[in-house]
Amino acid sequence: MEFTQDVFAEQMKPITGSAIRQVFHLLARPGMISFAGGNPSADALDVDTVSALAQEALAQNGKAILQYGATEGWAPLRESIAEFVKRAGIEAKPEEVLPVHGSQQALDLLLKAVINPGDVILAESPTFLGALQAMRTYSARVESIATDEQGVIPEAAEEAIRAHHPKLMYIIPTFQNPTGVTLSLERRKALAELANRYGVILAEDDPYRDLRYAGEPLPAIKSFDEGGWVVYLASFSKLISPGMRVGAAICNPVLMRKLVIGKQSTDVHTTSFTQAIVDLYLRKNLLLPHIERICKSYKRQLDAMLDGFKYFPAGVTHTAPEGGLFVWAALPEGQSALSLFDRAVENNVAFVPGTHFYPEGGHENTFRLNFSNSPADVIETGMKRLGGLI
Amino acid sequence: MEFTQDVFAEQMKPITGSAIRQVFHLLARPGMISFAGGNPSADALDVDTVSALAQEALAQNGKAILQYGATEGWAPLRESIAEFVKRAGIEAKPEEVLPVHGSQQALDLLLKAVINPGDVILAESPTFLGALQAMRTYSARVESIATDEQGVIPEAAEEAIRAHHPKLMYIIPTFQNPTGVTLSLERRKALAELANRYGVILAEDDPYRDLRYAGEPLPAIKSFDEGGWVVYLASFSKLISPGMRVGAAICNPVLMRKLVIGKQSTDVHTTSFTQAIVDLYLRKNLLLPHIERICKSYKRQLDAMLDGFKYFPAGVTHTAPEGGLFVWAALPEGQSALSLFDRAVENNVAFVPGTHFYPEGGHENTFRLNFSNSPADVIETGMKRLGGLI
Repeated sequence: MEFTQDVFAEQMKPITGSAIRQVFHLLARPGMISFAGGNPSADALDVDTVSALAQEALAQNGKAILQYGATEGWAPLRESIAEFVKRAGIEAKPEEVLPVHGSQQALDLLLKAVINPGDVILAESPTFLGALQAMRTYSARVESIATDEQGVIPEAAEEAIRAHHPKLMYIIPTFQNPTGVTLSLERRKALAELANRYGVILAEDDPYRDLRYAGEPLPAIKSFDEGGWVVYLASFSKLISPGMRVGAAICNPVLMRKLVIGKQSTDVHTTSFTQAIVDLYLRKNLLLPHIERICKSYKRQLDAMLDGFKYFPAGVTHTAPEGGLFVWAALPEGQSALSLFDRAVENNVAFVPGTHFYPEGGHENTFRLNFSNSPADVIETGMKRLGGLI
Repeated sequence: MEFTQDVFAEQMKPITGSAIRQVFHLLARPGMISFAGGNPSADALDVDTVSALAQEALAQNGKAILQYGATEGWAPLRESIAEFVKRAGIEAKPEEVLPVHGSQQALDLLLKAVINPGDVILAESPTFLGALQAMRTYSARVESIATDEQGVIPEAAEEAIRAHHPKLMYIIPTFQNPTGVTLSLERRKALAELANRYGVILAEDDPYRDLRYAGEPLPAIKSFDEGGWVVYLASFSKLISPGMRVGAAICNPVLMRKLVIGKQSTDVHTTSFTQAIVDLYLRKNLLLPHIERICKSYKRQLDAMLDGFKYFPAGVTHTAPEGGLFVWAALPEGQSALSLFDRAVENNVAFVPGTHFYPEGGHENTFRLNFSNSPADVIETGMKRLGGLI
């Protein structure tokens, strides 16, 4: 019998993969200025330090690193992450920290633990594509929460909770992907309170928190969590290396146990070698100076991009984030960023059309610009070129 | 509202984690001789080689290794795995190889791609606990296929296919966990033919294949796969390091595409650093000599264990595998390996009661013995002690 797509699980049949990843081959073209990706800058990846820490980790604990490890994670890393997130106001015991293969896995394990088909998840709209795709694989129904320039509007969240009885809220509170918007302090408190009052799990996905180039850091939503309804998703992809795939879920012990059980059958445990390297990065106090250094470069790049909007016609609006990797922009209503994308790629400049980030589609005038992958002068050239095409 | 277990997904509520992992804390007791685990021997983990290859990988490709990688895997590793599995008679193109975080993840992604709740999976009974747990998280119904000392009986498999219309067959063909049994050549051909004739995906989980201490290697079931219904699950956990979490799925391109989509939302991609290290292990021809060396030690340990049955009373039966990590034994019908386990642990020797490996329970007289974690003289002491307790 010939192999047939009929064998696929129902919810997997319509999922065809990331729309963004499908255009990525265009971006490798010589001369292309890409504002499309979301990768950290190559300069931010410190090969020498990783190499030295890799040696040190193996010299200290080689046999343990190469042997099967605990599903719960490399014990020293659980400690050092618990210490690290104190910066965000989070008081967690090491046993409330689950190191995973990137924060995407933290979300996936959370969905596995709690989502029955048809359960509702409230999310910002637009939001992170990888999260939406994960939600679809568990047959969740995604409903949008209204947002403004300070992030999710708590009154709208409460209304949505009453209307939809969601199992989960998914929120990226700091320098959101794709908009760059940061949730205000008061709203952080309000959302933690809503999660606890209504018994809704709040997944706080916070990979960009430490990429702040101006303004004051805000405490995590998790820091206001009284009853254990907030799950904090931490990531070292934007701080140390995405290729190492180290992130963490921080949550109450009852939920932790279920995430661990899900992880047992998913991949047994997180790669110990990279866990040990990230632990040494933290334990030896190498991470904060590294973050300080990369933030200086990213600030120059962000400034160049924001400045570059002077080349855009009036009527194009954009966010002005104080950190992260993205700026969000909108053409005047009625114009299409999808057709702009085609013309842009022909002219060797690329971005991501915003419609892809909306669970319900539409919003074809919006687009996302990433500034971490080109030096400031190239960003200026790219913005000038793009502005000329609008 | 207090956090409550009510939030958990229905199929996750009854899953309480590996019964084996729960007794593992007992095994750390001083003086304990453990035949309970399934870990490779510490001697088989070559820290120096890994350390040297880690340096080399970062020196050659540091920026690429630390950056986001392709969900499809580290391209050089896909090539070198395609080359490596030729040993098993498998002709695969690099793009038919998906590196993953251990073969457990290969199984998990396969289940995610094809299982609807209630779908039937045929499996050996007893079989690998981690596979059973993964199947339960997807609400699959597991049905046993009859086996004998040559593995799955093809006539029984065909009967089960006609009776249950399974989506999947899950088979560990070589030095099976837990029994140590190896599927014969004729039966490998027959099962590949059945999978293709009836359109049933056959997951061939083959982590022990290269741990052969006697006899002739057999081609993989996958080598007889004409229509692409066999998925080969490869693992480097028993050959290089389980802590590195590198395995692979090898399958047809249509299924590959769906596994990749599932992996995108599960953990984006496999840790590039460990993929690059395994690639160099293979590419520099370091793996085969390493396997040869570890097989010599494992053979001595297996021989010591098989010899140790002389201390057991008549009526205890056992398998005599030519490789792998496990020997399977049975007390005379009516006796309980569960109560033997309690007495054994009191006397500082441990094993795993066999009932845990049966999807339907029962078979309380059976037990699994692992020989890879003690030197030959300790194995003799342990077998003598255990024999004396029966």
